[in-house]
Amino acid sequence: MDIERTAGDACPIALSLEHIGDRWSMLILRNAGVGQTRFDEFQKSLGIAPNILARRLVALTARRLLERRRYTDKPPRDEYLLTKAGRDFLPVLHALGAWGTRHFSNGDVTGLIDATNGQPVLPSIVDRSTGQVLSNMNLRSAPAVTT
Amino acid sequence: MDIERTAGDACPIALSLEHIGDRWSMLILRNAGVGQTRFDEFQKSLGIAPNILARRLVALTARRLLERRRYTDKPPRDEYLLTKAGRDFLPVLHALGAWGTRHFSNGDVTGLIDATNGQPVLPSIVDRSTGQVLSNMNLRSAPAVTT
Repeated sequence: MDIERTAGDACPIALSLEHIGDRWSMLILRNAGVGQTRFDEFQKSLGIAPNILARRLVALTARRLLERRRYTDKPPRDEYLLTKAGRDFLPVLHALGAWGTRHFSNGDVTGLIDATNGQPVLPSIVDRSTGQVLSNMNLRSAPAVTT
Repeated sequence: MDIERTAGDACPIALSLEHIGDRWSMLILRNAGVGQTRFDEFQKSLGIAPNILARRLVALTARRLLERRRYTDKPPRDEYLLTKAGRDFLPVLHALGAWGTRHFSNGDVTGLIDATNGQPVLPSIVDRSTGQVLSNMNLRSAPAVTT
């Protein structure tokens, strides 16, 4: 897929999609977010072909969403840990999940809770300064702002 | 890609990814969000092969993220409009873009502004009830909650 065509695009969404990769990559990051670190864990839980998984782990490591760490030398075995950018992607995945729950679920998908108090959590996307819900706003692209 | 393996998954993220499709689909939705509706517009702005674009438009329509509407009969021509679910996906794309801007940009990507007052908008993902920022929370999956 010639997604590289978007590389010169000044659009941050295109930039993000280039870093994330495909759906498998997003599911790997999701699973890393619940504590999985090892090839076998990802492979078994995702039911993904080993060669596909291996390629995705290499790509996610190259894009610095995962960090590879050797955990044993005999035999040589690596594990994969979320980087800061990888961890920061998890809320985006939760917002994506909340969107799917709103529009396509029949109450048959899991929700999120705050592990500290057991309260349900519903991801909402708001403007950081005003707290306004983005879906109620009239937005426009503009030259870069510093975050 | 055998993503259908995740179809029986109770995970809302997997559910969402099945509906969204690939990166091209997300870029099509992004462009629909800025007012593009016609095949030629999508094709030209994305630099996407016509057969790939045609397949993505069919899939996005089947999954009810876009709605097809005939705008002229001679010759027969359709346009594609965001459905409610498609429109509601735009904030997720903006949150994705904000993530990429934070981690991968050199200040060379566009930002968002509130079209009504020109103020910069920085998407943030928070819990709807408490306003807590998700990246600061300790989250866990739990049986479905009603949104």
